[in-house]
Amino acid sequence: MASAEPPLCIQIKPMREGTLEFEAKRAVLLQSFHDKVPPEYRLPQDLLTNPPNDVSDIPRSCGILSDWEIEITENYDAVGLAETIASRKYTALAVTTAFLKRSIVAHQLTCCLTQWLADEAIAHATQLDSYMAEHGKPIGPLHGVPISIKDHIPIAGTFSSQGSLASLVKDNKDCQMVSILRSLGAVFYCKTNQPQTLMHLESDSHWGRVLNPFNIKLSAGGSTGGEAALIAMRGSVLGVGTDIGGSIRGPAAFCGIYGFKATSYTLPMERLLAAPFAAELNVLCSTGPMCTSIRDMDMFMRLMADAKPYLLDPRLVPIPWTGLQTSLGRRRLKVGIIKNDGFIEPQPPVKRAIKWASDLLSNPKHADLLEVKSFTPFAAATAWSKIQRFYWPDGGSLVKSALLSSGEPIQPLSDRIWQEAEPAGMLTAESVNNFRRERDEFRLEFARAWEEQDVDVVIGPAFVGPACAHDTAFYWTYTSLYNLVDYPGVVVPTPLRVESGEQYDPGYTPLSEACRAVRRLWESENFEGAPLALQVVARKYHDNQLFGALGVLKDVLGLP
Amino acid sequence: MASAEPPLCIQIKPMREGTLEFEAKRAVLLQSFHDKVPPEYRLPQDLLTNPPNDVSDIPRSCGILSDWEIEITENYDAVGLAETIASRKYTALAVTTAFLKRSIVAHQLTCCLTQWLADEAIAHATQLDSYMAEHGKPIGPLHGVPISIKDHIPIAGTFSSQGSLASLVKDNKDCQMVSILRSLGAVFYCKTNQPQTLMHLESDSHWGRVLNPFNIKLSAGGSTGGEAALIAMRGSVLGVGTDIGGSIRGPAAFCGIYGFKATSYTLPMERLLAAPFAAELNVLCSTGPMCTSIRDMDMFMRLMADAKPYLLDPRLVPIPWTGLQTSLGRRRLKVGIIKNDGFIEPQPPVKRAIKWASDLLSNPKHADLLEVKSFTPFAAATAWSKIQRFYWPDGGSLVKSALLSSGEPIQPLSDRIWQEAEPAGMLTAESVNNFRRERDEFRLEFARAWEEQDVDVVIGPAFVGPACAHDTAFYWTYTSLYNLVDYPGVVVPTPLRVESGEQYDPGYTPLSEACRAVRRLWESENFEGAPLALQVVARKYHDNQLFGALGVLKDVLGLP
Repeated sequence: MASAEPPLCIQIKPMREGTLEFEAKRAVLLQSFHDKVPPEYRLPQDLLTNPPNDVSDIPRSCGILSDWEIEITENYDAVGLAETIASRKYTALAVTTAFLKRSIVAHQLTCCLTQWLADEAIAHATQLDSYMAEHGKPIGPLHGVPISIKDHIPIAGTFSSQGSLASLVKDNKDCQMVSILRSLGAVFYCKTNQPQTLMHLESDSHWGRVLNPFNIKLSAGGSTGGEAALIAMRGSVLGVGTDIGGSIRGPAAFCGIYGFKATSYTLPMERLLAAPFAAELNVLCSTGPMCTSIRDMDMFMRLMADAKPYLLDPRLVPIPWTGLQTSLGRRRLKVGIIKNDGFIEPQPPVKRAIKWASDLLSNPKHADLLEVKSFTPFAAATAWSKIQRFYWPDGGSLVKSALLSSGEPIQPLSDRIWQEAEPAGMLTAESVNNFRRERDEFRLEFARAWEEQDVDVVIGPAFVGPACAHDTAFYWTYTSLYNLVDYPGVVVPTPLRVESGEQYDPGYTPLSEACRAVRRLWESENFEGAPLALQVVARKYHDNQLFGALGVLKDVLGLP
Repeated sequence: MASAEPPLCIQIKPMREGTLEFEAKRAVLLQSFHDKVPPEYRLPQDLLTNPPNDVSDIPRSCGILSDWEIEITENYDAVGLAETIASRKYTALAVTTAFLKRSIVAHQLTCCLTQWLADEAIAHATQLDSYMAEHGKPIGPLHGVPISIKDHIPIAGTFSSQGSLASLVKDNKDCQMVSILRSLGAVFYCKTNQPQTLMHLESDSHWGRVLNPFNIKLSAGGSTGGEAALIAMRGSVLGVGTDIGGSIRGPAAFCGIYGFKATSYTLPMERLLAAPFAAELNVLCSTGPMCTSIRDMDMFMRLMADAKPYLLDPRLVPIPWTGLQTSLGRRRLKVGIIKNDGFIEPQPPVKRAIKWASDLLSNPKHADLLEVKSFTPFAAATAWSKIQRFYWPDGGSLVKSALLSSGEPIQPLSDRIWQEAEPAGMLTAESVNNFRRERDEFRLEFARAWEEQDVDVVIGPAFVGPACAHDTAFYWTYTSLYNLVDYPGVVVPTPLRVESGEQYDPGYTPLSEACRAVRRLWESENFEGAPLALQVVARKYHDNQLFGALGVLKDVLGLP
């Protein structure tokens, strides 16, 4: 850190440094953030330099939040907060202030923010309170609910970036998603940290590296890593992320929260990215909510659908939201259980989480509700190999040259992601078209294999392990597979955590070289305390059916 | 024509010739078609060499079809034929034979076919009759209904091409669309002619040039021109076309039949095109039915949706079909009337057709049903300029080099279509991505302008005029606009025809250079007798709402 004052955030593992000019610019940026934080919201310096592994409880114990601010930030989900404000138990200002305080505490512990919009949020909350006083009713269903937003998503009057200084832009206009949330009464009070390039799972932008709240030696995941850490710290109850390879689901799993990647173009996607993204020639970047309850995801989806965003963006599919109310009719829900994808065996605690779910789902008392079978996704190894090329029709050159030209260091995982595509360089339109044909053929084969296995939804790993150690998120095929085929997927936290001494089964046989590498990663770190999550996936455009299934699974698995 | 025998079809305007080698290959192909046609199905040679302008009545009068074959081919739509066969009034064999005969007569008059599958169709119809005899019920809702298919769409055991010899391939497998139709009991008995490259509106493949049945000096349109001419001649009641710029709607309008281009990926599109099509990087080639009644289009859409094609092709949007039953609730249908697109004033008879519709729709007796307003589509001239570049991310090089390498002559309209894109040559992935961003921004602006004008559907021209003279289909912006934005559009025939002496209004002011050119085209040909059609368009993915509106318009306009 080139900051003049002591660092604002814990940074447990140094990041690569850029040119002097770059680091000077970066220091100015960090300092300006630093200067916005009032002294009374600052954690003691010795805590930041000598932090415990698990920082998740510090917001409650640090003394910065009042009792009722702890109560506001810990005891509600977004649905609950909206009700509480609508019923005038709390003002919008009180709720906003509580989350502003908790978010800045969370930031100091995990480096989860990029912008902290205290003045703007307080002004907005005050306006909302006036509206309520004057009209006697909320301005909309999200009146006063604070919502955190991933840094690259435009909010009028703030900055956005794609995880690098070179990509920083000032936004004069809300994107459609933000505009809808604002019209419903949401308060924007912070933006959250993400990886350099957005294209991997370690959130290591020019703002610093995001840490996992439950074990800061572990990654919070990415690319929506800041969001996931913030929500896990209850510095937010509802955030918006994006996902082109697992960027909502990975960090949600790493941090033990809910994260939903919708089928592309079922949610507003207008201007989520400031510049065209070469990867989207082959794989669309989808979006969705991150939060602490299933009903929050359901509410988010319902409110978005009710806003009829397709009237202004005709790319959006106008499927009405039935969500948790979606009925299967009289038949049983067919659930496929993924023990492994045939490519990489998950690490021991993830296997345990799958067994936990499988045992509950297979309990004969649910036999009139559920038909449980085992499921193997089609060609996961092939999918991983394909998608690494599909992400970079430009051979990685556009992002890489932007980074290099601004003197920014290329962080370890950025360096790795375009390796497979770099030799081919910038493709021609003809090659792009051939890639797209290849992708579409994969999608058809995948669908056929799904049909043959005859399931409504599948449940399985969200990642090869729990949160990984920093800079080691090498294999995200359990999530990227569903970007390649564009199926909706939701990550659900389990009540389980990594225990001490969990080991690979003596009979373990590696499924691939990658599988071996994942075992080595397991054996070189202590993951104790990390949350364990699972992923539930349905067919493309079957987002309603996915939530209909979640309604059933929720009761059987005892999910919040 | 390089055929050894007298030509099988009328060819009123010579086509450009290729190399000797190419013409020799082509002659073999034409001869093999020729040889399949029994002498008793052949029209007199003097009719073919000295044809009348209007050949539409010859199938009835030529004596080749029996009275009941005339009755079968003239008195039913597809819904009616299915009922007639299911009720055993006619056998599948009788119906198939009637359409085989009428189609080969139609072909001789208009060059509408590429393959005539007499043996296969008779065998299939015979099987279906046996099934009916054995099971006492039809095999499916299309039992014995003959369906004609555009040449490039794969049917197992036949050939497909993209309008050139170089693109000819043998297909071993039905594409999904054909497979579904087959499973419902449809009989495939012919494939239909299309333009060289598929990318313009004059159907001038290596099989020859398709003629307009009502005036052979005029074009039948394209790219699904063979289909339109065949259906107008009642050599088919139901065909399948594709449309990337107007290829269903243009020929439907030229020939006075119904043609529906659905929103992309609402109907099966799997392997409609054998090779990746560079244009589809920017504008998808959609598909849909061509037929003689609104209820046939509705049935086609319903049967396709009922087959749940999205289970095998996850790209397909699983919107259930409500079609003609789609209700607006209690409010009036908002209809926008397009008098011109701000770019090209339609030729006089099209203006007359719009006035005809406008007068009927504005009749005060429908005021509780309809709200009629004028509508101007957003930036039609810009759209036309953009789409001409968007179609050719390869600068046209891929198709052009394939044609040249096989010695095929480049036909006049092929030569013209890539003019705007050729200088830029083969684009890079980066440029393709920028094009797509530009396209998406246009789509959003178009939607916003539609919203501001607040309409459910619009009704207006399907083309700048009625059927144009051969090789003069230069401006198809009235259809291609809705490919650029991917809105569903249906062409509806009116009871009107071009009358003698129709002239431009004395107060005509050209809207553009193209507008002037369109007037010159009008003044250099006699279009008398050509059908007049209109186009109805709804928002993207609002195919059901489009049909809901059609249900209302049908009654008001008195459509079949």
